[in-house]
Amino acid sequence: MFQESLKKLVAETDGAVAGLLMGFDGIAVDSFSAVGSDVDITTVGMEFSFILTQVRKAAEILEVGGVLEIAIRCEKLTILIRVVNPEYFVALAVKPDGNFGKGRYLLRMVAPKLQVDLS
Amino acid sequence: MFQESLKKLVAETDGAVAGLLMGFDGIAVDSFSAVGSDVDITTVGMEFSFILTQVRKAAEILEVGGVLEIAIRCEKLTILIRVVNPEYFVALAVKPDGNFGKGRYLLRMVAPKLQVDLS
Repeated sequence: MFQESLKKLVAETDGAVAGLLMGFDGIAVDSFSAVGSDVDITTVGMEFSFILTQVRKAAEILEVGGVLEIAIRCEKLTILIRVVNPEYFVALAVKPDGNFGKGRYLLRMVAPKLQVDLS
Repeated sequence: MFQESLKKLVAETDGAVAGLLMGFDGIAVDSFSAVGSDVDITTVGMEFSFILTQVRKAAEILEVGGVLEIAIRCEKLTILIRVVNPEYFVALAVKPDGNFGKGRYLLRMVAPKLQVDLS
């Protein structure tokens, strides 16, 4: 069921190359990569799961409420991350010329469904 | 000169409460807070300067090019960060109902000016 949601995320976002559902401990639940994608989304997720944990700690210290989403734009790839629940996040990797506004919207839409599927 | 740029950033972004120019080492160059703002932007910047450094390391490992910008959306505050050069970043704190698309655009516009002023 996760595979279907991730595939849909990637297919419906122009320029998206991979989607991932992962625990904050860096262990992937499921992932989907577009054909021909050279992005190792599990490695990307593992690198960022540690950072996400740091962001959550910072948000707690700063008392700015729970972390909802993070977007990291690099020269060759944009990583969009949506927190699903306190244990899991969903991520989408989008090429620089891709539609990351759409990706962000779709992540927001799919998060409640993933939350139900994970419980 | 930094004060003027930061003030303009905050004034022209609906819902923005504070702007900051900071080194990646967590030392602030200058900051500006809107009247009545309860956000301690220097503390926010210090917390995120460490995270930014981690993001840059992750981007290097993943070979996704240089980090350009980061957006962190929390329940009570959105933090927009634009990398100015390898030593400095500019950040803008925006309330949840603010126009962070405008904020992101203005950060992109002001970064080259700050880069010149810093050199």
